[in-house]
Amino acid sequence: MKFLAEIEILPKKGLLDPQGKAVGHSMKALGLNNIGEVFVGRFITLEIESTDEKAAFESAEIACKKLLANLIMESYSIRITAK
Amino acid sequence: MKFLAEIEILPKKGLLDPQGKAVGHSMKALGLNNIGEVFVGRFITLEIESTDEKAAFESAEIACKKLLANLIMESYSIRITAK
Repeated sequence: MKFLAEIEILPKKGLLDPQGKAVGHSMKALGLNNIGEVFVGRFITLEIESTDEKAAFESAEIACKKLLANLIMESYSIRITAK
Repeated sequence: MKFLAEIEILPKKGLLDPQGKAVGHSMKALGLNNIGEVFVGRFITLEIESTDEKAAFESAEIACKKLLANLIMESYSIRITAK
């Protein structure tokens, strides 16, 4: 079966996010004064061939831990849907 | 009221995604042979002060169109949740 893993990666709370800060300032310059804190991370989708949802989640988690996320500075969340 | 906008930005289908291709190749090198197509985009969260969910969505959409997404090459999707 084919699954789609959607992975959201964000800088951990409390760590510096200069890109988020820069975007936040630009929001004000655009007149969007109702926008407060901004965080900028990565969004990654993986197509996974797997027997079930649990195994697909495990593959996505290995990919996150070994390659996609820097676990010292970033946290990730994984959504799995059947394709 | 405070809302959280979670914005997922991906390269449009059919357009070149060299970063996704590179990650896809690395998956094979890591032994994750069950992972097929990979797309790499951006994940952005905005804290929005707004009267209701609809107005918060509209603010997030303006931010996407004016600043966050390159609409020629990227597509975005917005999720709004009350904070």
